This record gives sequence, structure tokens and C-alpha cells, in this order.
Amino acid sequence: MRIAIYGYGNLGRGVEAAVRQNPDTELVGVFTRRDPAAVKTVTGVPVYSADTVLDYTADIDVMIICGGSASDLPVMTPKLAKYFNVVDSFDTHAKVPDHFANVDKAAAASAHTALISAGWDPGLFSLARLYMNSVLPEGKDYTFWGRGVSQGHSDAIRRIAGVKDARQYTVPVQDALMKVRNGENPDLSTRQKHTRECYVVAEDGADKALIEQQIKEMPNYFADYNTTVTFITEEEMKKNHAELPHGGLVIRSGATGEGGKHKHVVEFSLKLDSNPEFTASVLVACARAVARMNKRGIYGCKTLFDVAPADLSLLTPEEMRKKLL
Amino acid sequence: MRIAIYGYGNLGRGVEAAVRQNPDTELVGVFTRRDPAAVKTVTGVPVYSADTVLDYTADIDVMIICGGSASDLPVMTPKLAKYFNVVDSFDTHAKVPDHFANVDKAAAASAHTALISAGWDPGLFSLARLYMNSVLPEGKDYTFWGRGVSQGHSDAIRRIAGVKDARQYTVPVQDALMKVRNGENPDLSTRQKHTRECYVVAEDGADKALIEQQIKEMPNYFADYNTTVTFITEEEMKKNHAELPHGGLVIRSGATGEGGKHKHVVEFSLKLDSNPEFTASVLVACARAVARMNKRGIYGCKTLFDVAPADLSLLTPEEMRKKLL
Repeated sequence: MRIAIYGYGNLGRGVEAAVRQNPDTELVGVFTRRDPAAVKTVTGVPVYSADTVLDYTADIDVMIICGGSASDLPVMTPKLAKYFNVVDSFDTHAKVPDHFANVDKAAAASAHTALISAGWDPGLFSLARLYMNSVLPEGKDYTFWGRGVSQGHSDAIRRIAGVKDARQYTVPVQDALMKVRNGENPDLSTRQKHTRECYVVAEDGADKALIEQQIKEMPNYFADYNTTVTFITEEEMKKNHAELPHGGLVIRSGATGEGGKHKHVVEFSLKLDSNPEFTASVLVACARAVARMNKRGIYGCKTLFDVAPADLSLLTPEEMRKKLL
Repeated sequence: MRIAIYGYGNLGRGVEAAVRQNPDTELVGVFTRRDPAAVKTVTGVPVYSADTVLDYTADIDVMIICGGSASDLPVMTPKLAKYFNVVDSFDTHAKVPDHFANVDKAAAASAHTALISAGWDPGLFSLARLYMNSVLPEGKDYTFWGRGVSQGHSDAIRRIAGVKDARQYTVPVQDALMKVRNGENPDLSTRQKHTRECYVVAEDGADKALIEQQIKEMPNYFADYNTTVTFITEEEMKKNHAELPHGGLVIRSGATGEGGKHKHVVEFSLKLDSNPEFTASVLVACARAVARMNKRGIYGCKTLFDVAPADLSLLTPEEMRKKLL
């Protein structure tokens, strides 16, 4: 399976690493909107200009699009799905119906297969919610994120005057989590589910009290949360906050039997050292499924909900049943 | 979707309860090998003799077969798959290839769809292992069971002379579990993973020391485990051990990136008040998928590995993407 990467940031580098763990895949190259001569890949695979991508339609089985959901993917994925089988990690929840429709139109008309919103949330967490809801129709869903770095929240802090660098960790509230795990089905406000830990490097002479206040009062991002702000040095930032860990969990708490007398708690959780590398690993497994579905004549836009799990696996059906069933 | 139950024990009663939680399903009836007049269903659905099952082929969309894996299902499922779409919970791991082949032959030749080995292990745990292995090709799998009642181990104790009743709980060793969750990838022996707690009602005048010794030395069942035996009264058994709770967890601990420097721990866990009711709930969701796949002309034997998750759900694809993605 010949894979190419479109967009070479953290996620693109993650795909490059993941391809090496999957012996049925090979990396054709990386496409970038930057000057290809200025981009050096970790494994030495060739870098091409994004402008030349249509010269390679015959050489690529699946294009993994590693762009941002805000402005890149809504344009890139429908455009590329006209010429390639594609996978993306589109995660702007409210805009999924539009994105799905645009990609479906492009892919179906050109006999390509596209899988959008792959990764872990959306992605594996979505699958967990779907399986849990299917087997426990009466119940309640909870999703907690963290402990992990939120890039969006870190960026929001960096935009404040006097801030040199920042890292924001989203942290589930342990007490709320325990109640959910115990099947108590609590109603939880935003504040009751997560706290936000901010580590900030201030510029020399900056007003730290003002920065802290601006963070804590920032609407949408921090105002609805219990937020802590800790000022650290640049050295501490480099030493202790260079990585991008993340994770979280999905829980469904349901009931069966007469009067719902039997309670059941189903949980799926992730603890990830590297958010982009794990997300990329999911994208590569999805690329395998996309290539297989396309060969079978299954065209148009799909999500992980439409993929038979066997299609994600390196193993043969017999091996799967023997080793994993 | 018209469902029938073949075999009316704990699992069959669980299916009866689960059908009531799924508005797109209705229960046609229960088939039993006992005298139908002697079997009273919880919800009043009709009971028929298993001998008459072929009179109902036109009335049933999916037959859920609720028999034991040791001697019932290897005969029942291939036989019934000639005439019905079927779902079973076959769980004798070593015999899956034979069972799969027998059921596949019967179902494929008669244009029926059969789904075997549904439930939670095999079933949801198998799915967890497959997804985890697909997205983390380099890593190690662990499965822990419990805390929960093992029917097979309880039965084994009941067969000892002087034992009136017994209940055996399988319990994961917390220390081993913590090591796995921490990503330490330990090599664990049978004894290091689970302990076995036995609650025994002895007959009057029975030699309790001898019973305890016979339990603890029983090969395969107890000899390889740290086993505790507690003698209790019949009243205590009724009061504290009447339910059939179970559960467990699947963990994959993997690595990505250069030299595998980033560790990832993925966990799926269940905490169930009623093993048979939860298993039955999975079987009913599988019946939905089987009916849909059969309408699409997908025949033969399948497992959950072959089922696109969307086919298990009551929701439309649009609702699913909106609510669960």
C-alpha cells in the first residue's frame, strides 16, 4: 500500500513514523506547501511541492492529509478526494455534516474512497460511544479528556501580551470521574468535569498578575473552568513541557433487566505520550481500510463507523480469529 | 426485526429483557427442548417446542441461540443456520475454527447470515484487541477477568463430595494490573494475574479441611492460582451471592516514534452487575447487524470483526455522526 503525506507538521511526522511500523505500507513522499528544498524528512523520504500533487495520482494508493481542521481540511480533503483515496482527522464537530457532504460528493463522483474524522476523538472514542450505545440502549455517556496538552488553549495563552510561551494541560476532575465510574450518573457542569493547568513563560517586566487575570477570564477557553496559572522559566518549559501527551476516557453507564436493576459500566481509556504520533497511527490503519474498501468498489465518504474492524488489521481473518477473538 | 430465542436459561431471559430496550425488535417466541407447558416466560411471550422450530422459518428474522458452548452450540448453530439467520455466543476458543467452518458451510449454502462468538469475551473484548493491535502494531496485550462469578469454576466445586453449593469469583491481582497500566509490560504467570475466591456451603458433617484441599489442588481450575476457600451458610449464599456479576479489562501497551520512545496505554473495561443480561444485550445488537447484512446479500459465517459498527446501531448514519462522532 503506497501512502503519501499531505502536510508535514507534527501529525505528518507521526504518519512517517507509523508507516515504518506497518510492513504492508510504504511511504511514497511528503507534499508540502512550503519550499520542498527547505523541508527535511526524518526518514529521508522525498519532499514534493503541493502544487505538483496531481502528477502523482498513479503512484499513490492513499493520501493522508495532515492539515488543520479550521481552514486546511475543509478545502484540502474535498479537493484531493477527486484524485486520490484520502484519510483526514477533521475534528470540528459542528461542521462534520458539511465536510462529510463535500467530501462525499467529490469522492463518489470520482470512484474514490475517503475516510474523515479519524484519530482518537473523533475516532476511537467515537467508536467506543457507538459500540457502548448499541449494546446498552438505556444509559448515559461521559467523555473526559486529559491529562494532556491542548494546543488550542496553549495558543490562546500565547496570544496574550507579555506571554513568551505557554503550555495548557486539560485535567479530568478525579472526584467527578469516580462518581461516573461508580455508576452514579451525575449531571456534571463544564467546571465539574475538567480543570485547566497553565504553565506560562512571561516576557521580562511583564505584569504577571494581569496575564493571570486575562487567562482566567478568557471566555470559552478558561472562564468556565477552575484554572491555575504557574509562571515558569524558559528552561523549565523546555525541560518539563516539550512533549505533547494526551488521553482521556469514554464511559457509558447503563442498566438492563426488570426496572433497570442491573447496572453496567463500560469504559475506554487512552494514556498517550504523544498525541500526534498516536493519532497518526490511527490514520495509517484507516488508510489500509480505505485502500481495501476502494478495491471492493466502496466509494464516497466514510467514517470509522462504516469500517468493518477486520479491514483495519494487518492480520488475515484466520489469524485474527485465532489470536484476537 | 422479528427475533426468536432458542434455549431459555439465564442468557435467554437476558435476551428477552434486552429486546424490550430495542424499539426496532420484537420477540416472536422462545423455543425450548423442555416441555413448553412447563416453561413460563418473564414477559409472557409464547413458548414453543424446539422440535417445531422449522414451522416458523417465515416468522423469524434472526434466531438468537442461547445454548452452552461445550455441547449445545456446536450442534445447534450449524443446524439452525440452514434455516435461519443466527447469532450465538460460542466461547470455546480452541474450537472456533471448526465451529466457524461448520456454521459457514450451512449458512452460505442456504443464503443465511450467521454471527458467532458474540458477547463480551469473545465479543467486545475481541474488538478491543483488534482495534488496539491495528493502531499500535508494536506492543503487548493483556486481558484480566473479574471481579466476577465463573460458572465453570463454581460447577467444578459443586461436584466435590460434601459440597452443597458453591460460588467462585475470579479476581484480577491489583499489583499486576497497576504494572500493566503503568506501561511496564511485565511477563505475568497465571498465578500473578488472577486469584480465585471460593464461597462454599458444606453438607452437615462434611470434612471441610478435605473439601478445601480438594479445591485448592484441583488441576487446571485452581492448582495454578492463589485460591481462598470460605465456608458460609446457605442463608449467606442466598443473601450475598445470588447475582452473576462479572467484568474485566483488555489493555494494550504499545510504543511509537523513533526507538519506540513514546509509550501509549489503551484500556477497555467492563463492570457488569449481570453477566448474562449484558451478554444478551450484545447478542441483540448483533442480531440487528445480521438482519441488515442478510438483506444486503452478505451470507455465511461472520464474527464482530466483520461487522461495520454502524450496523449494530439503532441510529441513522446522520444521527450517529451528529451524536456520537
